[in-house]
Amino acid sequence: MEKILELFSKDKFSKNCGIKVIEINHGYAKCSMEITENHLNGIGTLMGGAAFTLADFAFSLAANSYGIVAVSTNAYISFLKKCMGGIVTAVASEISRSHKLGVYRVVLTNNLGEQIAEFNGTCFFLDSHNTENTH
Amino acid sequence: MEKILELFSKDKFSKNCGIKVIEINHGYAKCSMEITENHLNGIGTLMGGAAFTLADFAFSLAANSYGIVAVSTNAYISFLKKCMGGIVTAVASEISRSHKLGVYRVVLTNNLGEQIAEFNGTCFFLDSHNTENTH
Amino acid sequence: MEKILELFSKDKFSKNCGIKVIEINHGYAKCSMEITENHLNGIGTLMGGAAFTLADFAFSLAANSYGIVAVSTNAYISFLKKCMGGIVTAVASEISRSHKLGVYRVVLTNNLGEQIAEFNGTCFFLDSHNTENTH
Amino acid sequence: MEKILELFSKDKFSKNCGIKVIEINHGYAKCSMEITENHLNGIGTLMGGAAFTLADFAFSLAANSYGIVAVSTNAYISFLKKCMGGIVTAVASEISRSHKLGVYRVVLTNNLGEQIAEFNGTCFFLDSHNTENTH
Repeated sequence: MEKILELFSKDKFSKNCGIKVIEINHGYAKCSMEITENHLNGIGTLMGGAAFTLADFAFSLAANSYGIVAVSTNAYISFLKKCMGGIVTAVASEISRSHKLGVYRVVLTNNLGEQIAEFNGTCFFLDSHNTENTH
Repeated sequence: MEKILELFSKDKFSKNCGIKVIEINHGYAKCSMEITENHLNGIGTLMGGAAFTLADFAFSLAANSYGIVAVSTNAYISFLKKCMGGIVTAVASEISRSHKLGVYRVVLTNNLGEQIAEFNGTCFFLDSHNTENTH
Repeated sequence: MEKILELFSKDKFSKNCGIKVIEINHGYAKCSMEITENHLNGIGTLMGGAAFTLADFAFSLAANSYGIVAVSTNAYISFLKKCMGGIVTAVASEISRSHKLGVYRVVLTNNLGEQIAEFNGTCFFLDSHNTENTH
Repeated sequence: MEKILELFSKDKFSKNCGIKVIEINHGYAKCSMEITENHLNGIGTLMGGAAFTLADFAFSLAANSYGIVAVSTNAYISFLKKCMGGIVTAVASEISRSHKLGVYRVVLTNNLGEQIAEFNGTCFFLDSHNTENTH
């Protein structure tokens, strides 16, 4: 896990968003992000891209947790509740994982434990027979 | 359009991402983002959250272009091609719009005109009978 | 619930698919479908459209369970495992529900209790101020 | 193309839905479905599962058009307009295709040429190094 955490600590975009890793395990990751004025859109609520970034980062951590490189192919996000401040927590868990594909669900909650977004992400696992770019 | 652009210019998250508005019209928006090292993930490619943010911003502009407040409900993104630098352009266009709901497609392309991501976003339009939060 | 079940019993498409309602409650529904050769695609596995139909029907039941008409706006489905026979069960549960919008997750499992698909559906609730078509 | 069309002609589920292939080409397919009372839900409109089935079938045809087996991994559909009768046409076109992954967009239109649904599907291509099931 240390190698993975080291790799993800080089992710500048998520670092600039203030995302922190709380826990990582096989197929699982928990992260948090404190909402500052830098995360807000024009009407003063959490920008969709900021919420997505937190979810996507937790998803990637969970997907890469086995030490096999996981390339994200697509993702779906539902915005459930406005958010204007406090700490948002993302919990990524594995729905399914095969030799080639992984599917993960990420639940975002606010300070009060209310779910503010639901995220589903799919990834493709690279292997020794297939180290070239899949894209 | 000026009032809308003024509102969106207050979006700190997209501003910090370096997103610029190129064009806005009814149901249409074009934006760009120059990729710097601040947009990269741990393996040196454009972070999914950064790509999503650009797409989401263009979608929101197009959805709000009629002067009626549009609240994003969900979005879907496919990552098609790695991106390591240059300028990414997002073009948001309207697939469908009714009294209540709008659906928009956003195409992200790189410097070479290659599509790097496909985004679909759905929004809900607030009206005078319905000014309370939909969430 | 009886009025809702009566309405859904008129759904010819799901009836022809052999879908049965097992349980319905507020924000919840459980349905099943026995796979016959009529549900298979050219390579002898459960056709994606058949799996989607089961999930969509359970989602609609759960969304309409309060007696307020719910119109489906979009849905996302991940296909996790091939399925070639037996009974598929769909459990729809509510992720979020407001005055206007509902978000539901549906889990499809096979005979062995293995998850074969994950579905997310969003709907819009019609009300007295808004009885016209939202589309 | 003949081998592919023969394979897809064995798809019983789509056949029972009355889906017809109009055209197929590399990365492209056009299909149609005449709406009968068998396609309707309890409120007399085209059932979501029937619309999805048509879109999914056109997507699969386009994805398999190169003679390489394509396994669908996930799909997203937006329902844009009610449909109560007539012929629905699905046009599937390729957004992106690599050695491993394909992404396709399907547009569903009614008799009047109005778009009634937008579909996005992702597939995984099996190859000689990878003939085992990806799921």
